[in-house]
Amino acid sequence: MLGKFYIMGVGPGDPKLLTIKAYEILQKAAVVAIPYSKQEKDSVAFNIVKEYVPPSCQILSLLMPMTRNQELLKKAWQEAAAQVAAPLKKGLDVVFITIGDPAIYSTGMYIYQELKTLVSELRCETVPGITSFTASAASLNLPLALGTEPLLVVPHVVSKERLKGILAQYPNVVLLKVTANFPEIVTGLEEMGLLNKAVFVSRCGQAGEFISFDLKSLDPRSLDYLSLVIIRKEGVR
Amino acid sequence: MLGKFYIMGVGPGDPKLLTIKAYEILQKAAVVAIPYSKQEKDSVAFNIVKEYVPPSCQILSLLMPMTRNQELLKKAWQEAAAQVAAPLKKGLDVVFITIGDPAIYSTGMYIYQELKTLVSELRCETVPGITSFTASAASLNLPLALGTEPLLVVPHVVSKERLKGILAQYPNVVLLKVTANFPEIVTGLEEMGLLNKAVFVSRCGQAGEFISFDLKSLDPRSLDYLSLVIIRKEGVR
Repeated sequence: MLGKFYIMGVGPGDPKLLTIKAYEILQKAAVVAIPYSKQEKDSVAFNIVKEYVPPSCQILSLLMPMTRNQELLKKAWQEAAAQVAAPLKKGLDVVFITIGDPAIYSTGMYIYQELKTLVSELRCETVPGITSFTASAASLNLPLALGTEPLLVVPHVVSKERLKGILAQYPNVVLLKVTANFPEIVTGLEEMGLLNKAVFVSRCGQAGEFISFDLKSLDPRSLDYLSLVIIRKEGVR
Repeated sequence: MLGKFYIMGVGPGDPKLLTIKAYEILQKAAVVAIPYSKQEKDSVAFNIVKEYVPPSCQILSLLMPMTRNQELLKKAWQEAAAQVAAPLKKGLDVVFITIGDPAIYSTGMYIYQELKTLVSELRCETVPGITSFTASAASLNLPLALGTEPLLVVPHVVSKERLKGILAQYPNVVLLKVTANFPEIVTGLEEMGLLNKAVFVSRCGQAGEFISFDLKSLDPRSLDYLSLVIIRKEGVR
């Protein structure tokens, strides 16, 4: 019988934020598939789960280039899917681990799409994980949204104008992947009078967790890739 | 010493979706505080955790009226905070459990605000949980958002017009608490040509989990309170 493909969220950093379900699946895993990039020294996702992975488990490293070139990405997903398909066809379960949650901006979903074209009658199970933004809010004892308020999550805000448009419309906004254009974000918040309603969190739950209410003081060049900004017009303290 | 107040997310229904952290805290809990309403026969949150709560643990039931009357709600939060303050002052830890995640529309945050006025130097720790929408997406092996797409979460959409405005603007939308105005939601989706890009999920991970891609066939009167709709313009299958 075909092995089962798991797309598993391992949370933002703290190994204790894995679910019991994820923990139990990892304990029985034959193969754990880990996305990594050449630039990374280490896999964040693997660091989170390594204490739970049995020594007998095979580690499958899937190279994911750090690029927005769609052709290169597509090729990488196809190659990753082929690497995953081989053990599945041998009847081995493969657990693809992803930081945070698989439904929220995870490469796992692209690999799954490619895998469906390679493996007929693929069995797949997604295991949800704690997202970076709910974990960050928890670190601050802060609600992201209350009552009838909407919550908007936006990765890669590319311009100050777009940010200001969003902030004018919504009371609660989470900005993900903020490092590329951090100065624009700070200026946008300042121009809206919302700098004191924003908080910066990076590496939530990991050894290097960092929280700042003073976004203007941060050096954009020194920010970690795994960073986010929560804006809550009701206040963030 | 004062006890510690935990605001704990217990996920949407499956006890296995508790985090290891939440599990470990519950195992040592002196008091578990549970919100309940007169209308409910049973506490969903308590059903999720009851197997993890030690028999010696004291259960504190906090009555939360099912109302939008802000005065009545405020009074209920204040009374709940007083009930929680008593054991804290005796040095007992109190774990307030909430379905899903505490940052996402949880009563726990209101009680925390009231508690701060009653207990000086309150120690509080929020424990994040799996949200209903990421768990629902996982049940479907579905991404909620990919790449640079934003994700909008909206509870209580009150009019067809508002829904259509939102859908015109965003590729991925999660609607929570959809039962009150389900016919408006269906009509709005139909008028936007998006009925086949939507999926209905109720009681995700619980015994009565129900998923439907045919929203028009559902009887609004029979829908469970714990229901949501995911709309993804790229498709939901």
